[in-house]
Amino acid sequence: PKVITLPGDGIGPEITAAAAQVLREVAPDVTLEEHALGGGAYDVYGDPFPQRTRDALSEADAVLLGTVGGAQDSPWNKLPRPQRPESGLLALRKALGCYANLRPVRVQPGLEHLSPLKPELARGVDILIVRELLGGIYFDQDRKIEGDAAYNTMRYTTPEVERVARVAFWAAEQRRGRVTSVDKANVLEVSELWRRDVQALRDRSYRGIHLNHEYVDSVAMLIVSNPSRYDVILTENLFGDILSDLAAVIPGSLGVMPSASLGDGAGLFEPIHGSAPDIAGQGVANPAAAILSAAMLLRHGLKRPDAANQVDRAVAFALRSHPTRDLGGQADTGTFTRAVLEALD
Amino acid sequence: PKVITLPGDGIGPEITAAAAQVLREVAPDVTLEEHALGGGAYDVYGDPFPQRTRDALSEADAVLLGTVGGAQDSPWNKLPRPQRPESGLLALRKALGCYANLRPVRVQPGLEHLSPLKPELARGVDILIVRELLGGIYFDQDRKIEGDAAYNTMRYTTPEVERVARVAFWAAEQRRGRVTSVDKANVLEVSELWRRDVQALRDRSYRGIHLNHEYVDSVAMLIVSNPSRYDVILTENLFGDILSDLAAVIPGSLGVMPSASLGDGAGLFEPIHGSAPDIAGQGVANPAAAILSAAMLLRHGLKRPDAANQVDRAVAFALRSHPTRDLGGQADTGTFTRAVLEALD
Ligand SMILES: CC(C)[C@H](C(=O)O)[C@@H](O)C(=O)O
Ligand SMILES: CC(C)[C@H](C(=O)O)[C@@H](O)C(=O)O
Repeated sequence: PKVITLPGDGIGPEITAAAAQVLREVAPDVTLEEHALGGGAYDVYGDPFPQRTRDALSEADAVLLGTVGGAQDSPWNKLPRPQRPESGLLALRKALGCYANLRPVRVQPGLEHLSPLKPELARGVDILIVRELLGGIYFDQDRKIEGDAAYNTMRYTTPEVERVARVAFWAAEQRRGRVTSVDKANVLEVSELWRRDVQALRDRSYRGIHLNHEYVDSVAMLIVSNPSRYDVILTENLFGDILSDLAAVIPGSLGVMPSASLGDGAGLFEPIHGSAPDIAGQGVANPAAAILSAAMLLRHGLKRPDAANQVDRAVAFALRSHPTRDLGGQADTGTFTRAVLEALD
Repeated sequence: PKVITLPGDGIGPEITAAAAQVLREVAPDVTLEEHALGGGAYDVYGDPFPQRTRDALSEADAVLLGTVGGAQDSPWNKLPRPQRPESGLLALRKALGCYANLRPVRVQPGLEHLSPLKPELARGVDILIVRELLGGIYFDQDRKIEGDAAYNTMRYTTPEVERVARVAFWAAEQRRGRVTSVDKANVLEVSELWRRDVQALRDRSYRGIHLNHEYVDSVAMLIVSNPSRYDVILTENLFGDILSDLAAVIPGSLGVMPSASLGDGAGLFEPIHGSAPDIAGQGVANPAAAILSAAMLLRHGLKRPDAANQVDRAVAFALRSHPTRDLGGQADTGTFTRAVLEALD
């Protein structure tokens, strides 16, 4: 099988190299092929998602992404929107047809003290956020600034809602069987459609799932004040962007949070943290999220659950034996990665 | 001066009665006039914002609102959208021209333990959220469901951005002089306009203010992991809905959080919590948020800072001497209100 790696910008190259090393170790038959994406790709090819990267995807079984984008004052942010690093990322998601972004949020036993929440609230939290990734206000075709007014349209269709809802129901079947669908149906027509379609699909095909609907503002509160009430959270693109980042702070260590984006073809696997340009190139970034993304790639992309579990276990071990600086430890990228490699059983 | 009270639904009538009692005590010359709004108004007049309520507003110096809306399974939620309780609330905001919603989020010294956050994170938090209240995706004219697709358009114009930004800058001048403007400028054109206009206004007219711009997903994280970094947060309607509810959980007691909505004419003052139909009519609801909303009404609506401070102090005292059930105490609505009245100095 073939995995395309897209190291991207900032700390992306360092942590992707670490994840690639681990991948090579547990799946020696996998071919890794590196391509350009993001700000660096723009600098070289004049396009944050160059044609040669796009072409390479057709042969990929899975894609491992690092991080894209520069600092707030980066010249990349002054480019016309289609040339900015983020546009490369959105175009990549689209090209792969990855409509379901899965973000597990789990507080590891014994690591409750890292959470910004009180330990009794953080304990046992185990949420899976399923975010729709190819629709809504992100992919509006009529977006515009016109004189002193600007417009973006949020739009969803029934097929778009159903395909991502299926992923949430499927995931819930393997977990605790509960899905909370998030919307703003008291204000938005799009949410009304969303709620109706999710409920109808549940009633038609997933009667074993317990489904409820909550407003996005209420979920933002409850995720903090009572996170244990959630199993799977299903939501549209913009709400998912906000809620998945919010939920991600609960474990207290962004540096260990992976994600998987699944859809029609090859899946896309990436850490949820940003490109951290302030520490890029120093070899101190925590590669755990990238390595755990490689584990998700093994599980969902290559259907190798045993190798995935092996990596998960090794990372859990290394986080305890060699914590990185963001976790209050001393280990740099290399030290941590060697600890993972040694812990592979 | 004349104050219109709109008790609304659920616990609204009980807590508004409590707030009205306190208002009468500290401002005996104020005339209070009660009108209908929300689900109850629909039941009687067939309209959640009846014409006679609308007419009464023209004579108001300020409006004191309780809460509107029913339980999730309430028949009100099955009505056509314009007849639902929430539509009454949105129409009221519009009729009053209240474009700036102010929500103070303060953790009282000694009450850090109520917060879901670790005490060391909650300590000293003092944020003012300024949410744009009359624009964006909430007031879209082209909203529609069409077959199996639905659309809502987010739109802002420069004058809309500037008038609410002025409120944020003005408020910051009286606080710590810092404004964080929240957007999603890496994806949305509307946010690009928002960011540009807020910055231009600062550069033109508020050079003493320290302004920075952050993405909404990042703010959702940082409000939880490092809330003390914020002074004034300025944002558009939908992001403000989510972030202001999120921030509201930090003090750990929704029952004590007031809000003020200011604009062209009379201001609107209301608690931020919902109508809590499950405990309505039992006389146990915490009226603190409603009473503190009356204090904001005295301060911003009637320009009586002394009376406002008097009420603030009395509520702070009563919260300690007679905590309500939601705060782990015993006091019911009546007991708490009497404690406030007795504590007025
Ligand atoms: C960089 C940005 C376009 C992106 C998004 O909003 O989807 C990011 O925040 C994310 O969540 O992956
Ligand atoms: C009830 C609803 C329409 C309202 C809003 O979204 O503005 C509420 O959530 C609020 O924040 O006051």
